[in-house]
Amino acid sequence: MNKVYVAGIGITTFGRLEFPLSEIGAYPGMMALKDAGLKQIDHLYVANMGGGRVNHQTGLASAIIDTLSLTPASAATVENGPASGASAIKAGFAAVASGLHDVVMVVGAERMREVNNLEATDFVATLPHPIAEYVYGVTLPSLAGMFTRLYMEKYGVTSRHLAMVAVKNQTNALLNPFAHIQQPITIEGILDSPEAMTNNPYVADPLRFFDCCPVSDGGACVILVNEEVARTVKRPMVRLAGVGQATDTHAVHEREEPTDLMAVRRAAATSFEMAGVEPKDVDVAELHDAFTILEIVESEEVGFFKKGEGHIALEKGETALKGKLPINPSGGLKGKGHPVGATGVAQAHEIVAQLRGEADKRQVKDAKVGFTCNFGGFGNNVVCLTFIRED
Amino acid sequence: MNKVYVAGIGITTFGRLEFPLSEIGAYPGMMALKDAGLKQIDHLYVANMGGGRVNHQTGLASAIIDTLSLTPASAATVENGPASGASAIKAGFAAVASGLHDVVMVVGAERMREVNNLEATDFVATLPHPIAEYVYGVTLPSLAGMFTRLYMEKYGVTSRHLAMVAVKNQTNALLNPFAHIQQPITIEGILDSPEAMTNNPYVADPLRFFDCCPVSDGGACVILVNEEVARTVKRPMVRLAGVGQATDTHAVHEREEPTDLMAVRRAAATSFEMAGVEPKDVDVAELHDAFTILEIVESEEVGFFKKGEGHIALEKGETALKGKLPINPSGGLKGKGHPVGATGVAQAHEIVAQLRGEADKRQVKDAKVGFTCNFGGFGNNVVCLTFIRED
Repeated sequence: MNKVYVAGIGITTFGRLEFPLSEIGAYPGMMALKDAGLKQIDHLYVANMGGGRVNHQTGLASAIIDTLSLTPASAATVENGPASGASAIKAGFAAVASGLHDVVMVVGAERMREVNNLEATDFVATLPHPIAEYVYGVTLPSLAGMFTRLYMEKYGVTSRHLAMVAVKNQTNALLNPFAHIQQPITIEGILDSPEAMTNNPYVADPLRFFDCCPVSDGGACVILVNEEVARTVKRPMVRLAGVGQATDTHAVHEREEPTDLMAVRRAAATSFEMAGVEPKDVDVAELHDAFTILEIVESEEVGFFKKGEGHIALEKGETALKGKLPINPSGGLKGKGHPVGATGVAQAHEIVAQLRGEADKRQVKDAKVGFTCNFGGFGNNVVCLTFIRED
Repeated sequence: MNKVYVAGIGITTFGRLEFPLSEIGAYPGMMALKDAGLKQIDHLYVANMGGGRVNHQTGLASAIIDTLSLTPASAATVENGPASGASAIKAGFAAVASGLHDVVMVVGAERMREVNNLEATDFVATLPHPIAEYVYGVTLPSLAGMFTRLYMEKYGVTSRHLAMVAVKNQTNALLNPFAHIQQPITIEGILDSPEAMTNNPYVADPLRFFDCCPVSDGGACVILVNEEVARTVKRPMVRLAGVGQATDTHAVHEREEPTDLMAVRRAAATSFEMAGVEPKDVDVAELHDAFTILEIVESEEVGFFKKGEGHIALEKGETALKGKLPINPSGGLKGKGHPVGATGVAQAHEIVAQLRGEADKRQVKDAKVGFTCNFGGFGNNVVCLTFIRED
């Protein structure tokens, strides 16, 4: 299996973007080409979830490769719900690792501004089980709400812990010029003050407004290459060393223990094993905090902390930007934003920037091993990636 | 690069299916597992174009892997317009060729019955260029109509040649129990008789009703494995030997010569080169006849006949089931049907059945080398596959 490196990265500002979906994808692709000093690619994978439904556009990869004037290079789109991004990176990894292609661009792009918030909830409700969940009104926020309540009862997580995730990630986002949410918040303001109920209403009890990620437009790109190309482009040698993926039952109630996220556990274990590192070796991680509870639980399931103790590490500040293991220095989905199909690629973008030492004000010192967890559906399809700085 | 073989195949009847999209995908998957004698897979790629838009379902791969009880195997969906099927096969090929996975199931599935014919046209009109084509009313049938007129003027193709494709493929479909259209037609009936204008009205002049494929539901599956697994399962050794893909400009009018399908030409050349065979070595082919003109043109662009002479070979019967190079023995998109995301996988299914000698009444004698052309958008994204029977 050929070794696979990241030669170039690019990203758009996340938020409300005024340009079409194909350009939201093309722009970070152009940045990544410039970053790598490359002029042509062999193949493009695009990660996107909503083009057909939200933007009246299918065959998005063909549109983006044309926008970038990279024809006749081949192209296809990968859709895997909110895990589309890392799934596209996995497909790109295999293309380079096999030797089928030498240079594969992976772009994640989503333009959600066409939908209002209610429609956004129904759009992502294309993910729950259509017969066993959706018809009973189950959406992703409602699944997350029920999951959070169970987790609170079983492990002693409180609303205060959830708010700590929100405050930490929105604070990190203030240091990220590409982040959607540029709003300082405090525990006082969103939980304790008389205005908290107005500022931070319930979305799906016990989850409140600031426990949920925003609905964002955005795009990101990583260019994957083999070792020979990586050495030619002379960018820092960041290797995509571990790729792990696993699925779980579609309907959440069918899981033996619904507070266990087995797909996260399995995907992370596979990714670490392949990379030859352990959770304790990780210097910086991007986890999929679509809801605040998920950052806490994923930090346990991937092996950073013992099951049920993620909120304690959080409380101690271990996952803060200056902590022992900074989680979501980019701001995460909560602060940076969550253009669903793009998120997994944006996570990889942040980790590569960190391992290169190019993360500016949010730089984690001496980061050599980075990790991403991209969470699809309600945990029924998860992809974990491990990156290692080699030089 | 590891060699990649097809260990199992499965398909649904094409037409109007009464079961949900996830089961349209799961059913051929189950058949293919049984065919291969396998009980578990490492990864599932699903090819689908319309789930999010037409069926209110994204994350389809997660749904299908759960329906098949194959969790925690990993899964993702590939969308590439009508070329989704072969694009998913390409992704599966790379996964096995790289050694990342040993057994990859590739399922194509589409359920279009939710849409009426007008909506079907608008659904596939998510493929033309949104700003340069769609807003001016350009749909795929209208692009095909304009393309056909140019081709007629330049190369002497007539309406009679188009009708010959329709008659040939619907006749082949009568020998395929899985084919959507089970209706014998004649040149007399659709072109020459007084009732022809009623039976066969214009859709996009010069294309008429019988020049256009039907709108179908359907699913198909191939299971890709490495050589070791292939030898263990003891099915006929059919190798996926060549994978070629290319893109072209999104807007058709931007092409230097709009009657040249450069992406077909390039994808086929790459596929043949990788497989180490030439067009003249091919014993049986499935080409993408979404419109009758496309079979004629693709038969030239892939190298079976000289440019502008495909209709002459057709006229001579060379592409008939008993001809020198049978094209679309399955009935093609025209006769078998065109569940868009599934089509490329169904083409591979037919070729593997032919190379195994399992194609029953439509069997092409002594077929050892088979070829598929899966055509996306209006020729802006094309994937060609070459299969070789080895034992």
